[in-house]
Amino acid sequence: MKKSIAIDMDQVLADFYSKLRVTYNENFGTNFTDEEFLRTTQRDLPREDAKKLFDLLNEPDYFRDLKVLDEDAIEVIQDLQEHYEIFIATAAMDVPGSFTAKYEWLMEHLPFIKTQNIVFCGNKAVIHTDYLIDDSPRQLTAFKGTGILYSMPYNRSEEGFMRVHNWKEIKEYFIKQMEIV
Amino acid sequence: MKKSIAIDMDQVLADFYSKLRVTYNENFGTNFTDEEFLRTTQRDLPREDAKKLFDLLNEPDYFRDLKVLDEDAIEVIQDLQEHYEIFIATAAMDVPGSFTAKYEWLMEHLPFIKTQNIVFCGNKAVIHTDYLIDDSPRQLTAFKGTGILYSMPYNRSEEGFMRVHNWKEIKEYFIKQMEIV
Repeated sequence: MKKSIAIDMDQVLADFYSKLRVTYNENFGTNFTDEEFLRTTQRDLPREDAKKLFDLLNEPDYFRDLKVLDEDAIEVIQDLQEHYEIFIATAAMDVPGSFTAKYEWLMEHLPFIKTQNIVFCGNKAVIHTDYLIDDSPRQLTAFKGTGILYSMPYNRSEEGFMRVHNWKEIKEYFIKQMEIV
Repeated sequence: MKKSIAIDMDQVLADFYSKLRVTYNENFGTNFTDEEFLRTTQRDLPREDAKKLFDLLNEPDYFRDLKVLDEDAIEVIQDLQEHYEIFIATAAMDVPGSFTAKYEWLMEHLPFIKTQNIVFCGNKAVIHTDYLIDDSPRQLTAFKGTGILYSMPYNRSEEGFMRVHNWKEIKEYFIKQMEIV
């Protein structure tokens, strides 16, 4: 039986933070550069602003026009699909307004993924695959299989996870796994 | 650590088939009684009607006003939540238009469920919990943990699964599991 890989969406497939940075700068009087914005995910907003941010993200189209984070991703996933069962697992429950936009984004950019293999969840402890590629150490810790940390400046100090920096490295990692088997 | 239970929605929590029967009778010239309709899930519609049915189910509100299948479910799940980690796992990917309605249905009828524990998926092989309660033998076979078949006339001939007929029985089953532990 094929081994299975679950792939997170935001900051692994979709470039969420570039858009989020603009949303911050336009709404909260900040002037973040991309580099500054990616240094941390800890941005303690006053309660009123946090509510406003949630409402903006929860708009039905917010997640629809995100750019693909690394153009290699598409081809690598298509290749991996020949040897692995590929699932997409995104914590969409954090922003319930995003369901349709996230689904349509996947249909546009990864039309070869089986819709039966798309998972909108919250806590990824519930995901039963052999591997999970995610930028969140919290989700990788909850996950029961082999976690692979998609490297981002804000997770640079996290240790104890296998770390990848781009989709070429992901391809190389899984080619090696096949050779070991 | 608490053991975990994933619970299907349609025909376990929500009475989907009563509404589906009316949809059939109103659109496809049938005259099914409830009893007749529940005998089988095999209803080979001509391609055009199948498309029409999908479009009707895919309307944003179709799944919003389904009745609770067994009123005991709410109280039993609330009780079980003290001893088990409860997840809701529904094959929403079959009908992507249903995402918001299904989410809102859960918020209305099971507001005590953590949103982080809601999963919209397709194939339930991807669900990592100790138990899954589902009316679908196909999903229970794909699932890797202990499957519990929610009995329906259309699955009456399926053997090899632990079978429950209502939520009182589910409660009794899990009370017994706790005594065994």
